[in-house]
Amino acid sequence: MKTNEQIQAALEARLPQMTAWRRYLHQHPEPSFHEQETARYIAEQLREMGCDIRTGVGGHGIVATIRGERPGPVIALRADIDALPIQDEKDVPYRSTVDGVMHACGHDAHTSTMLGIASYYQSVRGELQGERRLLFQPAEEICPGGAKPMIEAGVLEGVDAIYGVHLWSPLPYGAVATRPGPFMAAADEFTVTVTGQGGHGGLPHQTIDAVVAGSALVQALQSIVSRNVNPLQPAVLSVGAFHAGKSGNVIAERAVMNGTVRTFDPQTRRMIRARMEQIVAQTAELHGAKGELNYREGYPSVVNDAGEVDRFMRVAAQLPGELQVERSDMIMAAEDFAYYLQQVPGCFMFVGAGNEQTGAIYAHHHPRFDLDERAMAVAARLLIAMAEDRVGAASGTAGAG
Amino acid sequence: MKTNEQIQAALEARLPQMTAWRRYLHQHPEPSFHEQETARYIAEQLREMGCDIRTGVGGHGIVATIRGERPGPVIALRADIDALPIQDEKDVPYRSTVDGVMHACGHDAHTSTMLGIASYYQSVRGELQGERRLLFQPAEEICPGGAKPMIEAGVLEGVDAIYGVHLWSPLPYGAVATRPGPFMAAADEFTVTVTGQGGHGGLPHQTIDAVVAGSALVQALQSIVSRNVNPLQPAVLSVGAFHAGKSGNVIAERAVMNGTVRTFDPQTRRMIRARMEQIVAQTAELHGAKGELNYREGYPSVVNDAGEVDRFMRVAAQLPGELQVERSDMIMAAEDFAYYLQQVPGCFMFVGAGNEQTGAIYAHHHPRFDLDERAMAVAARLLIAMAEDRVGAASGTAGAG
Amino acid sequence: MKTNEQIQAALEARLPQMTAWRRYLHQHPEPSFHEQETARYIAEQLREMGCDIRTGVGGHGIVATIRGERPGPVIALRADIDALPIQDEKDVPYRSTVDGVMHACGHDAHTSTMLGIASYYQSVRGELQGERRLLFQPAEEICPGGAKPMIEAGVLEGVDAIYGVHLWSPLPYGAVATRPGPFMAAADEFTVTVTGQGGHGGLPHQTIDAVVAGSALVQALQSIVSRNVNPLQPAVLSVGAFHAGKSGNVIAERAVMNGTVRTFDPQTRRMIRARMEQIVAQTAELHGAKGELNYREGYPSVVNDAGEVDRFMRVAAQLPGELQVERSDMIMAAEDFAYYLQQVPGCFMFVGAGNEQTGAIYAHHHPRFDLDERAMAVAARLLIAMAEDRVGAASGTAGAG
Amino acid sequence: MKTNEQIQAALEARLPQMTAWRRYLHQHPEPSFHEQETARYIAEQLREMGCDIRTGVGGHGIVATIRGERPGPVIALRADIDALPIQDEKDVPYRSTVDGVMHACGHDAHTSTMLGIASYYQSVRGELQGERRLLFQPAEEICPGGAKPMIEAGVLEGVDAIYGVHLWSPLPYGAVATRPGPFMAAADEFTVTVTGQGGHGGLPHQTIDAVVAGSALVQALQSIVSRNVNPLQPAVLSVGAFHAGKSGNVIAERAVMNGTVRTFDPQTRRMIRARMEQIVAQTAELHGAKGELNYREGYPSVVNDAGEVDRFMRVAAQLPGELQVERSDMIMAAEDFAYYLQQVPGCFMFVGAGNEQTGAIYAHHHPRFDLDERAMAVAARLLIAMAEDRVGAASGTAGAG
Repeated sequence: MKTNEQIQAALEARLPQMTAWRRYLHQHPEPSFHEQETARYIAEQLREMGCDIRTGVGGHGIVATIRGERPGPVIALRADIDALPIQDEKDVPYRSTVDGVMHACGHDAHTSTMLGIASYYQSVRGELQGERRLLFQPAEEICPGGAKPMIEAGVLEGVDAIYGVHLWSPLPYGAVATRPGPFMAAADEFTVTVTGQGGHGGLPHQTIDAVVAGSALVQALQSIVSRNVNPLQPAVLSVGAFHAGKSGNVIAERAVMNGTVRTFDPQTRRMIRARMEQIVAQTAELHGAKGELNYREGYPSVVNDAGEVDRFMRVAAQLPGELQVERSDMIMAAEDFAYYLQQVPGCFMFVGAGNEQTGAIYAHHHPRFDLDERAMAVAARLLIAMAEDRVGAASGTAGAG
Repeated sequence: MKTNEQIQAALEARLPQMTAWRRYLHQHPEPSFHEQETARYIAEQLREMGCDIRTGVGGHGIVATIRGERPGPVIALRADIDALPIQDEKDVPYRSTVDGVMHACGHDAHTSTMLGIASYYQSVRGELQGERRLLFQPAEEICPGGAKPMIEAGVLEGVDAIYGVHLWSPLPYGAVATRPGPFMAAADEFTVTVTGQGGHGGLPHQTIDAVVAGSALVQALQSIVSRNVNPLQPAVLSVGAFHAGKSGNVIAERAVMNGTVRTFDPQTRRMIRARMEQIVAQTAELHGAKGELNYREGYPSVVNDAGEVDRFMRVAAQLPGELQVERSDMIMAAEDFAYYLQQVPGCFMFVGAGNEQTGAIYAHHHPRFDLDERAMAVAARLLIAMAEDRVGAASGTAGAG
Repeated sequence: MKTNEQIQAALEARLPQMTAWRRYLHQHPEPSFHEQETARYIAEQLREMGCDIRTGVGGHGIVATIRGERPGPVIALRADIDALPIQDEKDVPYRSTVDGVMHACGHDAHTSTMLGIASYYQSVRGELQGERRLLFQPAEEICPGGAKPMIEAGVLEGVDAIYGVHLWSPLPYGAVATRPGPFMAAADEFTVTVTGQGGHGGLPHQTIDAVVAGSALVQALQSIVSRNVNPLQPAVLSVGAFHAGKSGNVIAERAVMNGTVRTFDPQTRRMIRARMEQIVAQTAELHGAKGELNYREGYPSVVNDAGEVDRFMRVAAQLPGELQVERSDMIMAAEDFAYYLQQVPGCFMFVGAGNEQTGAIYAHHHPRFDLDERAMAVAARLLIAMAEDRVGAASGTAGAG
Repeated sequence: MKTNEQIQAALEARLPQMTAWRRYLHQHPEPSFHEQETARYIAEQLREMGCDIRTGVGGHGIVATIRGERPGPVIALRADIDALPIQDEKDVPYRSTVDGVMHACGHDAHTSTMLGIASYYQSVRGELQGERRLLFQPAEEICPGGAKPMIEAGVLEGVDAIYGVHLWSPLPYGAVATRPGPFMAAADEFTVTVTGQGGHGGLPHQTIDAVVAGSALVQALQSIVSRNVNPLQPAVLSVGAFHAGKSGNVIAERAVMNGTVRTFDPQTRRMIRARMEQIVAQTAELHGAKGELNYREGYPSVVNDAGEVDRFMRVAAQLPGELQVERSDMIMAAEDFAYYLQQVPGCFMFVGAGNEQTGAIYAHHHPRFDLDERAMAVAARLLIAMAEDRVGAASGTAGAG
């Protein structure tokens, strides 16, 4: 069994390689559902390490399996691999070489971290109990995402626990955080169409004004959060876009609204949807118009297992390097890691990757987003520590971590 | 002096020619402010008749002057000559030959009517008292219009009365109508811009939501007509277009609204504008946003002289052919004839041009708009009758009409 | 036949008596539906004149009939006799002696004018053609009013025309006015009840907030006038009272709103009621509450016969004393004279009774309301002139007026 | 030192006396700020026990001090003693004898619990380390409450920790609960007055409609919670009462709204107040009216010390009787215990007092509210256990509990 210090050394030794992988991937980003070169590259690295891999899993997904010789639990670790349709505006040697596509969320680093973990686990394979299953998941950024098809392809079969991280630039390098229960939001999308009857701007009585009906609808929707949602349940309903009419002189026939709903509690989520159905239909109708709600459920809420968060609090506090271990607030962003946690207990964690010195100060999805690459070593260390602690708990002894 | 019957005969004799002119113009429409070929064509016809003309008046305007040998009042008659940016969808031999441009409002017929009148007056010039000044005005369809520059070019100098008509397809052929006082609406345009602060759809508290502020504004604007306008004063405020945001997931920074205000009473018009200034600024501000109102005054209300409408009622009732003489409702559409009436007493009149048999059943500005061409003879007759009655009233005897 | 001057003299001679009657009635006002002493007093005066009367007509109504010996039309003239539940705050010898009741609308003067007319007609009975039927109507101030039951009691049987006046303090003494067609508004009342579910102010999600639903309803109702009503049709919808909840800490179960709808056009009136039904039901429902509309139709619009208004214009202009004859705007107040005009052609007219010198400057229904009593002679003269002109028109000769 | 079992036995032995006290107080309730007989009764009981007491503290407050002979920390325990202006509708022998006043929140039981604790501590005085200070606080139900004046009277001087309980009927007997950090809400009250200009219901343009302005205000206030509040911060703004106008025919001059604001986070509380100032002033102004906000800050949020909640979790779990120890949700109700916690670390706790068998099923403040009286023994045990654990922690040994 490796000591904490040995693992630490092993991972730090791999940081230059992880950094090289990350920079290559950063220069060659591919958007969600189009990660074929990325997948090819990952598979190549894994094969070189001698890993047992399965490709084309649920799309461009890859599963690397490292089986110990001794029996033990199956622990899954997950990285996401897709990039975003954003133009890279950074001025660094490793900036994106693809116009309009960028790793602006750090999935390149997640991938590289997981390659580092693969390399480590291969090197200690003899001592491992049970199985470590490393998931390289495509298409996290766009619903319906890559987690669901990978699960349908069987990647969770036999898995006892799953862990994942997000390198997080709002959190400084050296900090790690998560929270028990609901951690990241369920994010749904909707389109509302109000259809009235267009006509001459000076003759409103011969029309049904979609702008007036649509505006009344936006107002009425505010009452869901202000009146219907339990004040102890965080929830957001935003209408991001409202488009109606072409000319000031012509009363608009149609208003189209797009928006998002964010919740943590499934009952609140269902209630909001039901209230929206009612408000859309009836606000339109009371103005004589027709209202249609197209509601698209996105990822569910990321719900961490309470016991696994206890593990995180304990394990992270004992890691070398004196990490700052925090209980996070809930986060209004969404993650399809949620689907894994609906099947298997586990924990999703933030690893601080912000650094004012190095310019890693921009929000995720910003055209100048970057991160402190040392966070990859922290992430790798944390994921391995969680996995091995879980294995050790199962066997009553410590695992290989 | 000509009898009613003689004038009638003279005009009916000219109807084939008027129809030919109208069809030529219909085939060769030019949009507002671009009527150069139209003006050239009109000038050519007038020169052939031997008229005294002035071209390039206030743009592409033309003034034809027919001076009687005996002294008397100066009477102006006005036709508008511009077409619309509408695709002609009629299936007739004389349909527009210009893609996307069409005489969809009947100005071609107004022009031809006025050419017919010119021809008639030339033929009776010896008997005329005073002056008949025929105005061929460009750019009625687009504010700031052609009437103002023509007035600035002096076309109303010395004028004692002015008359104009609109061939009107909602009114059947054989009917004529107008009303004393406010007849057609003042039509103003506005653009409202609400500037908030954009941001993540799940983090509304870090933003100022322009969709919510803009929707509240649309609601608040309704109270102007419902509460602030004297219920006896017709007024309309319509927001025709509302555009904000690109994505449902991002709270919109800016909402832009375009609309129209229609009034008949100048005090109501000023009040609405003042209320809008207040409502826009403060509704935006109460949401933490900034509101800007760009209010553009269009044509004022067409206000007929009461005495001239009495003349219309009397004169029209005596014309041969048993016209149906009606008192019109107010009309929410606008006309820059309003500017002439602000300077000189006169009357703007509708001449019925609808005909279910011939398919002249479409509203003005409709791609299949057409009119009963016989209405040109009615219009010419009516304008001449108004002019000559006015001249007769001045001299104590009947004029040449 | 009497000349204009003779009638004038006869009525001026009666002005002191009319004034005495009016002041007695002013001191002894009775509210709508309780006019028994008033009716007794009127009957007494009429009997003393030797009139043929019928009492208890449709409540406390009285009909006095003066039949000429020669055949001719039946002309009805109407006065209303009821007072208001208002405390008289004037400081004059003839102020009300009844606490909380006052002739604050001038019906005392209408009654006295009609008594003066009765006296005059009795004095010229021998010369009269046809019949003059003088209606003393109770309960004009409170819907359902006294006109309907009087009509049901047959007071319009055989009537050829009906005339009525309102002494009008906003119009100066010496002026008279009316207008053809819709003159005074239809006035309906409504009560809206929104029933939600009350509860703890801090737990809105367990309640249905009647204040929020009711407020949304008030906003939505604005769109009827701003969007659904033809801008050329005057219409008002006002919510005068809104009451919900007792305590700031408790969410209200119920909101009750009272209001009025004023229209001139029956179709607009029906449309508004239908829109209200829809808006009330659906605005409540979209908030999860229940909405009920109790809509009570009041008096219909007073619609003057166009020919009778022509008569007024002509007749009033010829009366001695150089009356200022005006075309009135429409008036948002209601009058149950409307019911008579639904059955019989006629005309309702305003007689100026304001006088800045004498303090007759307060609006009708004001606690300091008073009027220029000389207006009674004008009113009597005008009613007689209308009646006799109508009779003369029927017979081809002038009547007794 | 007493063992857990000994304390348990001592308190159970006192339960009949606590019950007798509670029933006497239940029969003789006094509303907030009028607790003089209650105070007299408490003082009498304490004097009989031989306690050192101070009366008239911050109104009708009483402080009983039990000083051990050995040095040690000063621990304060608090009970509230006031009743509510509610008519008792229970049918029990001990129902209120005072019309319209009732112990409908359980403060009678809090008082009796504290008397039981006093009796216990007197009996073990010789073994006590430090001081136990028992606060009998008046006027918890009505802001500004009794806690503040008692603190100003010095009751917290030298105090090291403070504990308090609420017997809680929604929680079953046998359960106890609290939570770290914000536990109960800050509850503020407000009154909004919108002053427009009244007038005739048919002439809105001559008025400023307070119902329309007030309704718009209610709508605009919804946007504070829906848009301005951080979704992770629970907050409620309720308008509980809205009153405007007397008659449907008269446009209202004034609308008055009362409501409550509930928050846990001081910054959110300040933000809401600031947003309300802006929304009230500007919504009124944009309608031409004047808006005034009278905002009255009530009790702040009850914020438990995290360490003390850890103590609760540990201590409660070890008490005999297998209590069900829960982490509570935040509670939207308010408590002036908040003021003590602003000065001294401590913990406020709920003690389950509901019992379906005995009919203790009604919400606090309900006219049929009752509680399971055995909960007093639990409450006493819990408070003593917290105090003695705290003392033991200070001395490194267990205290007398």
